Amino acid sequence: MSAPKSAGAVGADVLGDLAAASRILAAQGVVDGFGHVSMRHPSAPDRYLMARSIAPALVTPGEIIEYDLDSNPCNANGRGSFLERFIHGEIYKARRDVMSVVHSHSPSVVPFGLVGVPMRAMFHNAAFIAAGVPVFDIRDRFGATDMLVSDGAKGVALAESMGSRDIVLMRAHGSVACGPTLQTAVFRAVYTEVNARIQHWTMALGGGAPMAALDEKEGRLADAVNQGAGRRAWDLWRAQVRNQVNW
Amino acid sequence: MSAPKSAGAVGADVLGDLAAASRILAAQGVVDGFGHVSMRHPSAPDRYLMARSIAPALVTPGEIIEYDLDSNPCNANGRGSFLERFIHGEIYKARRDVMSVVHSHSPSVVPFGLVGVPMRAMFHNAAFIAAGVPVFDIRDRFGATDMLVSDGAKGVALAESMGSRDIVLMRAHGSVACGPTLQTAVFRAVYTEVNARIQHWTMALGGGAPMAALDEKEGRLADAVNQGAGRRAWDLWRAQVRNQVNW
Amino acid sequence: MSAPKSAGAVGADVLGDLAAASRILAAQGVVDGFGHVSMRHPSAPDRYLMARSIAPALVTPGEIIEYDLDSNPCNANGRGSFLERFIHGEIYKARRDVMSVVHSHSPSVVPFGLVGVPMRAMFHNAAFIAAGVPVFDIRDRFGATDMLVSDGAKGVALAESMGSRDIVLMRAHGSVACGPTLQTAVFRAVYTEVNARIQHWTMALGGGAPMAALDEKEGRLADAVNQGAGRRAWDLWRAQVRNQVNW
Amino acid sequence: MSAPKSAGAVGADVLGDLAAASRILAAQGVVDGFGHVSMRHPSAPDRYLMARSIAPALVTPGEIIEYDLDSNPCNANGRGSFLERFIHGEIYKARRDVMSVVHSHSPSVVPFGLVGVPMRAMFHNAAFIAAGVPVFDIRDRFGATDMLVSDGAKGVALAESMGSRDIVLMRAHGSVACGPTLQTAVFRAVYTEVNARIQHWTMALGGGAPMAALDEKEGRLADAVNQGAGRRAWDLWRAQVRNQVNW
Repeated sequence: MSAPKSAGAVGADVLGDLAAASRILAAQGVVDGFGHVSMRHPSAPDRYLMARSIAPALVTPGEIIEYDLDSNPCNANGRGSFLERFIHGEIYKARRDVMSVVHSHSPSVVPFGLVGVPMRAMFHNAAFIAAGVPVFDIRDRFGATDMLVSDGAKGVALAESMGSRDIVLMRAHGSVACGPTLQTAVFRAVYTEVNARIQHWTMALGGGAPMAALDEKEGRLADAVNQGAGRRAWDLWRAQVRNQVNW
Repeated sequence: MSAPKSAGAVGADVLGDLAAASRILAAQGVVDGFGHVSMRHPSAPDRYLMARSIAPALVTPGEIIEYDLDSNPCNANGRGSFLERFIHGEIYKARRDVMSVVHSHSPSVVPFGLVGVPMRAMFHNAAFIAAGVPVFDIRDRFGATDMLVSDGAKGVALAESMGSRDIVLMRAHGSVACGPTLQTAVFRAVYTEVNARIQHWTMALGGGAPMAALDEKEGRLADAVNQGAGRRAWDLWRAQVRNQVNW
Repeated sequence: MSAPKSAGAVGADVLGDLAAASRILAAQGVVDGFGHVSMRHPSAPDRYLMARSIAPALVTPGEIIEYDLDSNPCNANGRGSFLERFIHGEIYKARRDVMSVVHSHSPSVVPFGLVGVPMRAMFHNAAFIAAGVPVFDIRDRFGATDMLVSDGAKGVALAESMGSRDIVLMRAHGSVACGPTLQTAVFRAVYTEVNARIQHWTMALGGGAPMAALDEKEGRLADAVNQGAGRRAWDLWRAQVRNQVNW
Repeated sequence: MSAPKSAGAVGADVLGDLAAASRILAAQGVVDGFGHVSMRHPSAPDRYLMARSIAPALVTPGEIIEYDLDSNPCNANGRGSFLERFIHGEIYKARRDVMSVVHSHSPSVVPFGLVGVPMRAMFHNAAFIAAGVPVFDIRDRFGATDMLVSDGAKGVALAESMGSRDIVLMRAHGSVACGPTLQTAVFRAVYTEVNARIQHWTMALGGGAPMAALDEKEGRLADAVNQGAGRRAWDLWRAQVRNQVNW
């Protein structure tokens, strides 16, 4: 099968921001040697951009590959692709509003996929969580597997679990956070991790007492602010990467 | 509406200390991309000083803006202001003894605003907490909001919740710590965070057993020492910033 | 007793990788001033390679000593050996499939050897744990000791406790992780530590609820992937060491 | 009152090691802006050496002051002394075997002084804890205070609480660890902190189940090894300081 045709070159600033997003997620403890972030092609909604298979902290703009929404690489030139790229492709297919996707395994988040305790929005920076956090169990439809979303069918099932939310947990694996911009997806992935830590502490502290988390309306109102004022965090993180790598 | 008149220039050492305070709070994990610290104008009690809207770790002395106590900028020159500057202005109005205010969202502190468990003074460095820690729930007076103290009325309500204490928690948001000097406000913000971690551990360890925390009298006595000997911590933190930025 | 004969020189790349493994384990928080990693001699199954007695973060390729499987050094030249090298020698004797062994005391793992709660595989990166994690109590056969596996008999007892698994916990001491390659042993040691943290959070969160951990079949399938795709983590960690030491 | 006479100059290597010990304790998270480490004068058992009042991470060999056992400085030359130096002087008076003392407030340790749960030796590196850990409550003899051991009488009371042990917790304040050498006192202070974290996790994990901690005999045997092989940790930490400061 021949590679799908590229939708055209992307600006260096876009590739730089996407590569920086990988390093930001590593610096913030959201990803380690594993995990990946992608964005929809700025001028072609049926294409997305993501690094070749490499640890997030090592990504450079030159490592970015273009994929079609079946997750076939347009310009791999022999470079390996992430086994789980189907997470990204199938979410972009199912959700035209999603422009960026982050997949991670941060240790504080994994527990919420294991014991049936719903994650809730503990503070305004994690407001988008107030809409609810579904859990995808790959075992339900695929039985015993290697746990990876390694083909289109598994990606479709994951996207169905996520539905209209911007986050989905994956049992005994990790999570996915999405957004209408690269910056918002990164912001949400970072504050999902922070929120998880706060919820662990809050539940231990309360010992079963009700938690005055954000309700759905507060969540919607605060999430709108995060998408604007939240740029302040991106500006910090982007500057920190720029200081290290000069792009 | 024209900008209020400036109360006059402030020494470079003062601006340097205030900018350093932002970076100290970031280095100590009290603030991340968000949060802010202000001080009352040294020669004009009806003015205060705070950085433009920027991540705390990036503040420089040149970023400091002067505000009146209604939180109108005197010298913004097109620079953006923090949406929540009203926290600062209204506390300075209500409390003539407060000379510096820190607002933060540190993850260990947020839980105490969510489950009705009072924060207590676990050790002498957090002595000021022994006077009691009120919780401000923005929902009580303003219903569902974006959670931000983004106008004077909300600032007034927050200051009323704080009353005569030097700390107030904000439900599902963060906290505010105050002091009679910049150094003491920073010290208190840092040790509020440390105290929160100690209390999480202590309550888990004790499993409901009474905690031999500082009582009110011990709190007053130890807090007085902190305001003097506590300068040792500031001297360390200030030196660390100076090593990085040369101011 | 004269020293056993060396099985022959080993390539600089092998020594570099083994020395780097020590530093990787230190950088990942698996070892501190103590702990050690070894590998079987690439061309002599009755020999293994391990650093002289030195903190893992300080190991260089020149510090590597060759041992026979009774843990006698072939080429110590006056350099001291780890008191607990018998952990390594006796596991290599008992398990021909094991090519690398890591011994560590990481604080998150020690609790699982103290209270009879089995460690389970919380996520796919720790898949090898799904096969079960035995606990070795040195007291059972040797009574009150200094807790160290400091001779062959204790090493044999430890290897017997481990049996066919690739991990064993040591009561009030630490743990051992093994693998068919150096890279896999390091990977497993790192993700044992991460898994322990996830399990602490999960059990506190669930409060006794069943945990949807990996089952044995999922564990086998995911572990196979980790041994291939897991190289991505090694590539990152190895690059980080290389940046520091130039080998 | 004139200053007591000095017992004579001390070698630069000794002063370097003592100054390095301060920085090591800061780097290991045992002390922050506060805390101090001292050693008995190598040739005068009625004198001890400790830095002037300064944050531990900033100590240099030139900051070291000599004190008599009533904690009067011999050579302050206008430099300030730690308010709590009486902790050190009174322990050296009461315990001729103690050659070094560390006082710290590490957050993981403070809880054990607040809720009546005894600290136990969770692993071999913290073996000295198996002998038991008393708690000093300054309130018992002195009523409401600023919590500081700021005179001889309070130091005597603390030393009495400690008795023949090498550690004592201070309610709502911190702890003291001692040893027969500087290196052992530092080692014990570091592993007290690590042990506290392990015990928090173990007790949460066990939920009240008995813990297979080191018993007293295991504690004695393992502590003897720590005082020898434990030098490996000191060698690492000392090298890390030397890399930073060149002494």
